[in-house]
Amino acid sequence: MTSAVVMCAATSTEFELDIWSGVRLAQVEQALQQWVTVDAPQGQNHGAPAHLLDAMRYAVLDGGKRLRPLLVLAAHEAVCHGDGVQTLNAAMRAACAVELIHAYSLVHDDMPCMDNDVLRRGKPTVHVQFGEACALLAGDALQALAFELLTPQDGSVPEVTQAHLCALLARAAGSAGMAGGQAIDLASVGLPLTESQLREMHELKTGALLQASVVMGAQCGGPSAQAVAALQTFGAAIGLAFQVVDDILDVTADSSTLGKTAGKDADNNKPTYVALMGLQASQAYAQRLLAQAQCALDGSGLARTQALRALADMVVNRAH
Amino acid sequence: MTSAVVMCAATSTEFELDIWSGVRLAQVEQALQQWVTVDAPQGQNHGAPAHLLDAMRYAVLDGGKRLRPLLVLAAHEAVCHGDGVQTLNAAMRAACAVELIHAYSLVHDDMPCMDNDVLRRGKPTVHVQFGEACALLAGDALQALAFELLTPQDGSVPEVTQAHLCALLARAAGSAGMAGGQAIDLASVGLPLTESQLREMHELKTGALLQASVVMGAQCGGPSAQAVAALQTFGAAIGLAFQVVDDILDVTADSSTLGKTAGKDADNNKPTYVALMGLQASQAYAQRLLAQAQCALDGSGLARTQALRALADMVVNRAH
Repeated sequence: MTSAVVMCAATSTEFELDIWSGVRLAQVEQALQQWVTVDAPQGQNHGAPAHLLDAMRYAVLDGGKRLRPLLVLAAHEAVCHGDGVQTLNAAMRAACAVELIHAYSLVHDDMPCMDNDVLRRGKPTVHVQFGEACALLAGDALQALAFELLTPQDGSVPEVTQAHLCALLARAAGSAGMAGGQAIDLASVGLPLTESQLREMHELKTGALLQASVVMGAQCGGPSAQAVAALQTFGAAIGLAFQVVDDILDVTADSSTLGKTAGKDADNNKPTYVALMGLQASQAYAQRLLAQAQCALDGSGLARTQALRALADMVVNRAH
Repeated sequence: MTSAVVMCAATSTEFELDIWSGVRLAQVEQALQQWVTVDAPQGQNHGAPAHLLDAMRYAVLDGGKRLRPLLVLAAHEAVCHGDGVQTLNAAMRAACAVELIHAYSLVHDDMPCMDNDVLRRGKPTVHVQFGEACALLAGDALQALAFELLTPQDGSVPEVTQAHLCALLARAAGSAGMAGGQAIDLASVGLPLTESQLREMHELKTGALLQASVVMGAQCGGPSAQAVAALQTFGAAIGLAFQVVDDILDVTADSSTLGKTAGKDADNNKPTYVALMGLQASQAYAQRLLAQAQCALDGSGLARTQALRALADMVVNRAH
């Protein structure tokens, strides 16, 4: 029953979200196309080598759900009183910067010394296509490029905003954020984790960047302290929900092979929410997190939260 | 004769530089000790995993000439009219940030898919000590930490300065800087390079971060446009000189085995200045670059350039 109600709620916002996100996704793709062709730094005559740029573009363009950029733009719109045109450039840069961090993490994750994946989104992974050394450097350069995007030298983003965005992104990406979460993940294979340890791993590995996406988007629009606090709670809830749902989908995506899929999880010795608390409890937990996220928006003092709410719905009620 | 004069000049400044740099090196080590133990990001309860931090500290602490931090601090002092105490925190953060970028690049460079080195400064390399996956993540996290250091949340560095420093560091580290230079280096093995191609590779691979060190240090002290331009020229000259001298030392460091060492270069198929223009011409080129660097300081309008001059001397006239 609960599940059916939620499905209805998801369906009722689906069409609007499609329209809203369709426009923004096109803008994000266009911006990434433009910005992942960095030219020479100011005052110098040389540019980046073509081979490296090819690998960077291959890693970033034409793929992915772009959930993080959409969260940035939705949070920006929630905070802006008018249409947010004056600060849209900053928000679009923040949107692309978080996507670059996400993209670089996938490039490095896929490498032989990490997950050793040869396919991503149906294409050969970057190290398969360009070689390991080039993949390593492309990931490194994508991380730097994220901070380049946040610090334009053309006056289009106030320097105070640039500093805030860099501060948020660096902390979400680093040892107490994404990279730290990946290190815990590596160290946890085959080990029994408690729920709090599993949550901490995911808060860092996936949650920190999802939460930063929301807060960075808001930061571009000049948010109130109340709004920032609410959006931090919102971001933390959907960040965790994202991972719980990932674990659920690992098991339920093809229900006819449930036994086999569960067996695969066990083979990989990866701790998951489903393994820890069971499927039904995991599903209920994801819904509780969604309710927490929506509740945070209720107390945010923000009026235009439809896009954020719809994205949260999508995160929890997605089918893949 | 020229060489002897230069040796004398180097010797005359050596003692002062030792005293000057001894104090600063101790401060840099202390700051790195303090900052490469990042704790939880603001408002969160968790910190970075110990294993990752161990690898990061192993990569950064207790090793290296710290040339880049010293350049940052020397440029900062050159620009500051008083003692620079008000902006010393910013300069020390910049000094440590460039060192973190340098350290992460060594960690990734040493990995099997790159240079596959097992020893650095007499110790096992990071991937040998901690495993490849941990080395990869430690490098990634060190890059992020550099930007964390530049964006303190305690009001100690003006946000405008934070933004400028992030902008400079991101461009020096990225695809049109250090990472780009490494990609050209990888792609150039076994290929004949012209002098301009060799210079471009080194301007990116080593020069960009050395130049950024000088400019970032100056930026902390509020430099004039004239000073920035002069320091950019200075930084570019010593950045290139650093590499020319590296190539010279590869051949001359043990002159009794000159033939063998030259043979090693050829075996590695790495383009060098000595291979391209010969030993004597390379030595003369290094001295010309030093003269260019000193000349840039003459026209900088800056009074306190002794430390920068002495560091430039050291870069060109070092024995190892």
